Amino acid sequence: LASEFEIIRRYFDRPARSALLGVGDDAALLVPAVGMELVATTDLLSEGIHFRSGADPRKLGHKALAVNLSDIAAMGATPRWALLAIALPAADERWIAQFAEGMFALAARHDTELVGGDTTRGPASGPITICMTVLGEVPAGLALLRGGARPGDDIWVSGELGGAALALARPGIAAAAMRLDEPEPRVALGERLRGLASAAIDVSDGFAQDLGHILERSGVGALVHYDRLPRFPIDDPELERRCVLSGGDDYELLFTASQGARGEIEALPAEIGLALARVGSIQPGDPKVVVLDAQGRPIRVAPGFDHFAP
Amino acid sequence: LASEFEIIRRYFDRPARSALLGVGDDAALLVPAVGMELVATTDLLSEGIHFRSGADPRKLGHKALAVNLSDIAAMGATPRWALLAIALPAADERWIAQFAEGMFALAARHDTELVGGDTTRGPASGPITICMTVLGEVPAGLALLRGGARPGDDIWVSGELGGAALALARPGIAAAAMRLDEPEPRVALGERLRGLASAAIDVSDGFAQDLGHILERSGVGALVHYDRLPRFPIDDPELERRCVLSGGDDYELLFTASQGARGEIEALPAEIGLALARVGSIQPGDPKVVVLDAQGRPIRVAPGFDHFAP
Repeated sequence: LASEFEIIRRYFDRPARSALLGVGDDAALLVPAVGMELVATTDLLSEGIHFRSGADPRKLGHKALAVNLSDIAAMGATPRWALLAIALPAADERWIAQFAEGMFALAARHDTELVGGDTTRGPASGPITICMTVLGEVPAGLALLRGGARPGDDIWVSGELGGAALALARPGIAAAAMRLDEPEPRVALGERLRGLASAAIDVSDGFAQDLGHILERSGVGALVHYDRLPRFPIDDPELERRCVLSGGDDYELLFTASQGARGEIEALPAEIGLALARVGSIQPGDPKVVVLDAQGRPIRVAPGFDHFAP
Repeated sequence: LASEFEIIRRYFDRPARSALLGVGDDAALLVPAVGMELVATTDLLSEGIHFRSGADPRKLGHKALAVNLSDIAAMGATPRWALLAIALPAADERWIAQFAEGMFALAARHDTELVGGDTTRGPASGPITICMTVLGEVPAGLALLRGGARPGDDIWVSGELGGAALALARPGIAAAAMRLDEPEPRVALGERLRGLASAAIDVSDGFAQDLGHILERSGVGALVHYDRLPRFPIDDPELERRCVLSGGDDYELLFTASQGARGEIEALPAEIGLALARVGSIQPGDPKVVVLDAQGRPIRVAPGFDHFAP
């Protein structure tokens, strides 16, 4: 049986690139770039809650990093370094090797360096737990916050909504499962939105709820046209509304921008290869999301994801 | 039942101090100080492995932060920011309130700001899992690494060894339990050792094993005199040796320094209120720890802690 130190060396200890010191000392040693602010986020995934028992470890390695990169993207930042803490019921080398493969493949695409972590044995019959922390950088003063939306701003969303939630409701649809298991963090979009978007968030808890977070922080309301929302194809209209408005885990970017920025934003899809849809507008007043159907009638929105909801 | 967002707001969302943006956006936004390098570490604690079921949440809040601060101290860095990810089987508000109390009390003493995190529900009958990440800063070029020990250097250790391991072997000894449950990270010592120590590590896996990590990275050996090791009082000589040499979780600092630094190091205890003992010397040769008893005979050292040991 390989020891903890051997496992770390074999699968996670790669030569430091931009880090002064990566895996293998008491902590990582990093050099922040001059004139940049540091962005830090952490996410924990529990077996049985955030992923199925027996889930493909390669996809899990991808997703654990992707959800953090998505937070970095939502700040308009560039990811740089990652730390990984993982609790396993036993040292299953094959599992670890595949997890590392999925994680490093995504990390390479976003030039993100694994610089530290903690590999421990969890309770024997307990769940696998993965806790990832990602650090990124953004030029000082240009981070995209939730609190900057102003009345009259357009509301935009990238890609398509509802695919990840559909995969939970109807397992077996390959394209939907891919949205759930291997989300693509919108890092390039986040970087291009610096100085362009007035507020941004990633869609992790559901479109309506995440838009609600922007509204609360900004002290504004929102009007959204359901038929303008980019939707993953779902044949049941009732299920579609639930997945598109309240489904989580899509990891698209939801952002606001002044009407004056329309031209620049409309030019982005061709540049970065990602669709963007203008779906509504920010309104003065209470932080309420109003969604209208094609006939202009309000649609009732089911609550989004809450980890401790009864 | 309180929602995830309500819980975060109530117990973890405090106004940002040094952070530009703390809890409540997609990620924290921090301003690294000019001329400093960034130190980052993460540790995961699992119920049933790293702490007993039913452990006092206040002490757990302390310990989860303390073990990370200890890594920061072992780098000679000053802690600045923390991120907390926590998976709970249910939203037990009293537990969360006490956990937050223990964590914030220690954070306040070390001027460390909680800037982000992730609160999620873990599997219903699953373990509580706590993952903490701490970021610190150290003046460029002054971090204490494991690889700097040179033949002839003295070996030093702070405080006392063996107390935490004794608490596991013999529950009910209050002073030992305190060493296990509420370790004191040696932050002030780490800061004072900048430019003074040649290598450093914190004693988390056991004195001999952690010294071994310094030896491996530095490519040197070590000779240690057992009777010079600062020992938690244990009446059974066999148990004492095991706890002192191979017991983990003490979170003392173990460091090396040139003989020329002796005077300065001997002046530190009066200044920072922490005993320091000179316990041996770095030797040329293989990365082996040789421990001699009072009669100069080698003592056999039991292996230290390995999370995946069979």
